[in-house]
Amino acid sequence: MSERGDPAEPLLHGADTDEETIVEQAETSLDEDDRLKPEFLSAVLDAVEDGDSETARDLVSPLHPADIADLLELTPSERRADVAAALGDLVGAEVLSELNDYVRDDLIGALAPEQLAEFAAELDTDDAVAIIEDMEEADQQAVLDAMEPEDRAAIESALSYPEESAGRLMQRDLVAVPEHMTVGQVIDYLRDNADLTRDFWEIYVVDAAHRPIGYCQLSWILTCPRGISMADLMKREQTLIPVDMDQEEVALRFQKYALISAAVIDSSGRLVGMITVDDVVHIISEEAGEDILRLSGAGEGDINEPVMDSYRARVRWLLTNLVTALVASTIIGIFEGTIQKMVALATLMPIVAGVGGNAGSQTMAVTVRALATNQITGSNARRTIVREIRVALLNGVTVALVLGLGVALVFQNMALGGVIAAAMVTNIVTAGLAGAAVPLAFDRLNLDPAVASSIFVTMITDSMGFLAFLGLATAAGLTG
Amino acid sequence: MSERGDPAEPLLHGADTDEETIVEQAETSLDEDDRLKPEFLSAVLDAVEDGDSETARDLVSPLHPADIADLLELTPSERRADVAAALGDLVGAEVLSELNDYVRDDLIGALAPEQLAEFAAELDTDDAVAIIEDMEEADQQAVLDAMEPEDRAAIESALSYPEESAGRLMQRDLVAVPEHMTVGQVIDYLRDNADLTRDFWEIYVVDAAHRPIGYCQLSWILTCPRGISMADLMKREQTLIPVDMDQEEVALRFQKYALISAAVIDSSGRLVGMITVDDVVHIISEEAGEDILRLSGAGEGDINEPVMDSYRARVRWLLTNLVTALVASTIIGIFEGTIQKMVALATLMPIVAGVGGNAGSQTMAVTVRALATNQITGSNARRTIVREIRVALLNGVTVALVLGLGVALVFQNMALGGVIAAAMVTNIVTAGLAGAAVPLAFDRLNLDPAVASSIFVTMITDSMGFLAFLGLATAAGLTG
Repeated sequence: MSERGDPAEPLLHGADTDEETIVEQAETSLDEDDRLKPEFLSAVLDAVEDGDSETARDLVSPLHPADIADLLELTPSERRADVAAALGDLVGAEVLSELNDYVRDDLIGALAPEQLAEFAAELDTDDAVAIIEDMEEADQQAVLDAMEPEDRAAIESALSYPEESAGRLMQRDLVAVPEHMTVGQVIDYLRDNADLTRDFWEIYVVDAAHRPIGYCQLSWILTCPRGISMADLMKREQTLIPVDMDQEEVALRFQKYALISAAVIDSSGRLVGMITVDDVVHIISEEAGEDILRLSGAGEGDINEPVMDSYRARVRWLLTNLVTALVASTIIGIFEGTIQKMVALATLMPIVAGVGGNAGSQTMAVTVRALATNQITGSNARRTIVREIRVALLNGVTVALVLGLGVALVFQNMALGGVIAAAMVTNIVTAGLAGAAVPLAFDRLNLDPAVASSIFVTMITDSMGFLAFLGLATAAGLTG
Repeated sequence: MSERGDPAEPLLHGADTDEETIVEQAETSLDEDDRLKPEFLSAVLDAVEDGDSETARDLVSPLHPADIADLLELTPSERRADVAAALGDLVGAEVLSELNDYVRDDLIGALAPEQLAEFAAELDTDDAVAIIEDMEEADQQAVLDAMEPEDRAAIESALSYPEESAGRLMQRDLVAVPEHMTVGQVIDYLRDNADLTRDFWEIYVVDAAHRPIGYCQLSWILTCPRGISMADLMKREQTLIPVDMDQEEVALRFQKYALISAAVIDSSGRLVGMITVDDVVHIISEEAGEDILRLSGAGEGDINEPVMDSYRARVRWLLTNLVTALVASTIIGIFEGTIQKMVALATLMPIVAGVGGNAGSQTMAVTVRALATNQITGSNARRTIVREIRVALLNGVTVALVLGLGVALVFQNMALGGVIAAAMVTNIVTAGLAGAAVPLAFDRLNLDPAVASSIFVTMITDSMGFLAFLGLATAAGLTG
């Protein structure tokens, strides 16, 4: 973070690298999806097992840090420490920051606080914080104590913001200039200040109180004459990020306004940091992908999660599901007499419940996704429900026709066909209504619709499936 | 695209805008999640209805194009054309490129080809292509005919690449320089060439055959003395994108290597375009979010999709589900005699099937998500299955204990409790195995695991639930 060298020196990438490009590497180590080939992984693991660290290092050294992180993730957990030890300094700060949380926790345990402090100092504030924030308090303090005062202050300040907030995500190193500076002065300032960050995409223009009043893409600066002032060049419409904003909202804002970087401000409007899109991209993907896991009750749903953690997260949900299944079971119990008289009903009833459950899942997935992408507001919530009911009516009638005719033919019983068809329409329409209304209601109550909806919707479609079918069969006097 | 003015002129953002920032706008039109407030939408719709276009335009004009697009999406479809007409040129090229596909198709029908050609010319190639690619062939041709030859050529060339490929996603306007140029020469070249793009974040360094040999962030150029040569400054390790690469792979590559922009090359390695992260961010979100829709069989799952399209996408899946539900139904049929003797079995059997189905969904969600993020390869597929079975065993034993004890107590029947517990363990373990193995098998066969897995896993957990419970009950002589 604070370790910047001579302005020209560390930037001369051309001289100190071999000519291999990632495309060429791909031929040997990566498959067409940028995943490490199993053969490559085996070769590395075999070399480590044979005590041949040199071969392992030769194989791994051309890899991008993100690929070295993948390699460690793909290594069976009991061999990870050995592989990391054999690779030595190839497993550096950048690799650590790319690692899956669980795998990183595994490896970090083996590192000395001084080593971790050194890694943290090499990274941007946000990446260093990501590594340190999950550690136990005592270990965290040991690492902080081993850091230079300036780096420590930056990290401690980041840790003072809530988890998953913009304050944790931002980096402090940024370029801010007053509006009276000209393009030429800005370029001279950048050339003369060796300790400025080298990774920035936009410059912020601030007033005397350090409040951002505009921003400027680097490309605008490079394509303009030296004499133009920042006041004229900058764009005043800017998207500012409050430092306590939740990271999910930050990600949605980046996505909506196609931002590359954004200024982070404190409550008094002062510029305190910068978030860049590369720090947000993995959040966009995580947030978009986690609803599928939440909807199924799979918790974090990470394949690197310890088995006991997965067990605890999932069994809670299965036990809740057991309780809601009892509701459906109780409804069946009410109709035991009917089933006793006509056992074919027991054979058919799971069809009505199951297809209804599937229809509910469809509507629920659409609604949860639309809520997650901010596509539904108070303006169109009712319209969304009406739309889902219309789709459900079409679906219900189609499925009911097919099922009703089939049952009537197979059982040679028109009344039974009619009953199951009517039950099917009822349940699919109920599923459409519940699948849309339940997540919307949870969202209105500020509860996560993905976590809570599924169990309710399933309970409703199961119960309604059995109730409609067995109830109609009883009412129709099928068994009389 | 080709319409670039004087180098300084169009970039003077400071002069021609009012001072309102998006943060200030937010107070009046946006809620804390950057969604348009219902009151704001109503005010605009009321003004349009009253024929007061001026008020509508005054309200809307401070909005970002992405928010104007949201406004049109939130407007009921039958009123969209009126609102768009009232807003006039506020609904410009950028708004069009931000619109949901279905809503855009609605509005585009009302526009003349000449108008669309003008819009397309204002946009980057990739955004123009996104608008034009979904049009009917005849309409597409009319728009292309109305365009300037140069713009038309760029779009026709993009359209010649497969849909959802890098070729459709890239823009042609980029900055490429030879490696012998110095930083100073590059800056002068950028200042002197008015027709270069203004939106770029990195410069590509190419050889004599126009093959990229390195890249350079603009910040490196701005922080270096004029005399440094590009050969020394550039980074040679670069991530190149083949022009026919699928956009999902492009998105994963951007995410994995934290790219801001990347050079696109043709089959001979020549630089043909550039993809920037802002074009990829919405794909990352879409691809991560669509698995939840696919897994439920909800098709595109867009709330703006016409009802008939949703119906067609979903009913196909529900009918397939009907067929697989028959398998479970048939299994129950085999045990009709057993149920006849002990109707309580009919009451309890959906619990075993339902909780098993839920356990299967959990494992399936985790596996599908891990496959989508390239976390599973040949190296750890077997390990993932073993892990899921271990979690399933723990879950199965826990749920079986609770359920078995409960049933034994309620029904005062130890044997029945034992049977349902054994069936529950069997089904949850089966669910864990199927939930992991089925998506992995589909992926191995190059089929989309999210689309095809759910129906198989549900069929397996339903059938196994009924078979294990009714089969064990029969074998245990419960009804004897």
